[in-house]
Amino acid sequence: MSETVYDVAIVGGGPAGLAAALYAARDRYSTLVIEKNGLPGGQMMLTDRVENYPAIKEISGFDLIEGMKQQVESFGAQIATSRAVTGMSRREDGVVHLDINKGEETIAARAVILAPGSDYRQLGVPGEAPMRQAGKVSYCATCDGAFHRGKDILTVGGGNTAVEDTIYLATRFARRVTLVHRRTEFRAQRVLVDELDKLTKEKDLTIKTPFVVERIEPTADGNAIDFVRLRHVETNETEDIRVEAVFAFVGMVPNTSFLAGLVQMNADGYIACDPVTLRTTMPGVFVAGDCRQQAAMQLATATADGVLAAMMVKEYFRNPTTWAHTAMKDGREGW
Amino acid sequence: MSETVYDVAIVGGGPAGLAAALYAARDRYSTLVIEKNGLPGGQMMLTDRVENYPAIKEISGFDLIEGMKQQVESFGAQIATSRAVTGMSRREDGVVHLDINKGEETIAARAVILAPGSDYRQLGVPGEAPMRQAGKVSYCATCDGAFHRGKDILTVGGGNTAVEDTIYLATRFARRVTLVHRRTEFRAQRVLVDELDKLTKEKDLTIKTPFVVERIEPTADGNAIDFVRLRHVETNETEDIRVEAVFAFVGMVPNTSFLAGLVQMNADGYIACDPVTLRTTMPGVFVAGDCRQQAAMQLATATADGVLAAMMVKEYFRNPTTWAHTAMKDGREGW
Repeated sequence: MSETVYDVAIVGGGPAGLAAALYAARDRYSTLVIEKNGLPGGQMMLTDRVENYPAIKEISGFDLIEGMKQQVESFGAQIATSRAVTGMSRREDGVVHLDINKGEETIAARAVILAPGSDYRQLGVPGEAPMRQAGKVSYCATCDGAFHRGKDILTVGGGNTAVEDTIYLATRFARRVTLVHRRTEFRAQRVLVDELDKLTKEKDLTIKTPFVVERIEPTADGNAIDFVRLRHVETNETEDIRVEAVFAFVGMVPNTSFLAGLVQMNADGYIACDPVTLRTTMPGVFVAGDCRQQAAMQLATATADGVLAAMMVKEYFRNPTTWAHTAMKDGREGW
Repeated sequence: MSETVYDVAIVGGGPAGLAAALYAARDRYSTLVIEKNGLPGGQMMLTDRVENYPAIKEISGFDLIEGMKQQVESFGAQIATSRAVTGMSRREDGVVHLDINKGEETIAARAVILAPGSDYRQLGVPGEAPMRQAGKVSYCATCDGAFHRGKDILTVGGGNTAVEDTIYLATRFARRVTLVHRRTEFRAQRVLVDELDKLTKEKDLTIKTPFVVERIEPTADGNAIDFVRLRHVETNETEDIRVEAVFAFVGMVPNTSFLAGLVQMNADGYIACDPVTLRTTMPGVFVAGDCRQQAAMQLATATADGVLAAMMVKEYFRNPTTWAHTAMKDGREGW
């Protein structure tokens, strides 16, 4: 029984995975991208408009991914869709086996780049998904703040990111900001909460606690938010407010549960790695993009991770023994 | 006398500097890019064709930079050209002063991103510059190997990169490779030289030592190489050979001499930094792109550095004291 062994298997077909595939395929390695969904693209497929990718003035997430896909395939990389990686093991000879859809098939490769990405945690309320598609619900202030200059917005959350990014949006972009948090106390650091309180006196910034978002109501044509319904957690009274956009800062979830016990991860489930080489604790297995510790969570940084990981795979192929050895003996904390 | 203090000054207008400007300007910081040449773009302006920037199938270096420039300026960043930074000092209050053209003017900023880039060391022979413009002389196998599939090429150099990339080009792309080195012995590691020797038996690979390239002769229309003239270092005999392209692997030179004694650099002149935050040893001064230690020297990685550096500037502004303190007490080797 013979076995196909790819040179490089890439887990995840978002920007990091596709960029890794571009470089691996340009190096003429046999390259397979394994995507769990029916189409590659990851979070980008839910992104209405991208303005912060260097050299591209404006593009939809869909078109950006379509361009990357064509580019990658033109160099011979393959993209396999509807395949969730459900296990990973490394053989004595260094070949890594990926289990697909819980035993449905096995994919073997000499090196693996993990790029499963992270998902923003959703509010889980009616109207959230269609309004995200319409560019009216965002989970990233750095990505989307500039789209809502001079507008009224609503932010959600109580941690550091929520408070920091609410301050950021209130001072730099928005006309009016309403911050909604389900508890009365904030989890964010005190210095941030103090800054936030100070800002309520200087800017048009209102803090509403303890409230939750109950629904995001689209306008009749579906292109904008009509109103957002808030509910007081204790009294259950509701209140509708009109905003242009909602920014939800309620955390992120790396798509790494399938790797539990296989590679080292930090407490939040981000894959541990050496930031210079992007190698993980399993020899021959590298990581790229939003699923790794210390990821900057931007399109440009995710693609650069993919590029770097593919370059490091080349180094690894040149001298696998040394790399494996270094990975093992390296005692740096955190990976 | 009043003083204009920019929020962010960026030294160097190549891809790393322009990407940093994009993010800083989108954050609505007053942003100035300082470019020593008459036009921004750096090495990219000498790059005929780019095929390895994720999401852009093919573009000239000139058009890529033009796109980045317009994008950056649309968010309000300014680009000042023909201004060489010739000194840098940090005042007690944290403002960094940049000396321009040896005392001609001073630019002040709350934070600085150093992105002066590196230059490939040139062979310094007639025909090199025009043939580089025509895409026939390259200094980067990863960038340009795929353009010369099935062609006859000449490589130059004797160090690790020269030998590694000659092997890479000979095994993956070229039909015939001639490696020229000015000494009889190679500086490259023994294991690489052994691999190279082995390959001369398996592939159409010829090693010519001790030879130097004397000239690269263009065809009459200037679009291609007619022949390359080699000279034997001891006998001075010359020999003309026909190739499609020349790859010169004779080292790189970071454009960092103006920073000597100001920020920590490694022995080769690359700026020392923390790979996760890109901060240098001077508080409030960050680094991005090919001038930093451990740079991957690719367009995508340089732009991601710019993005990351700008994001870290934002963090630094939030809490400059902590950042300065951390930078000082961090005793990690190498920065």
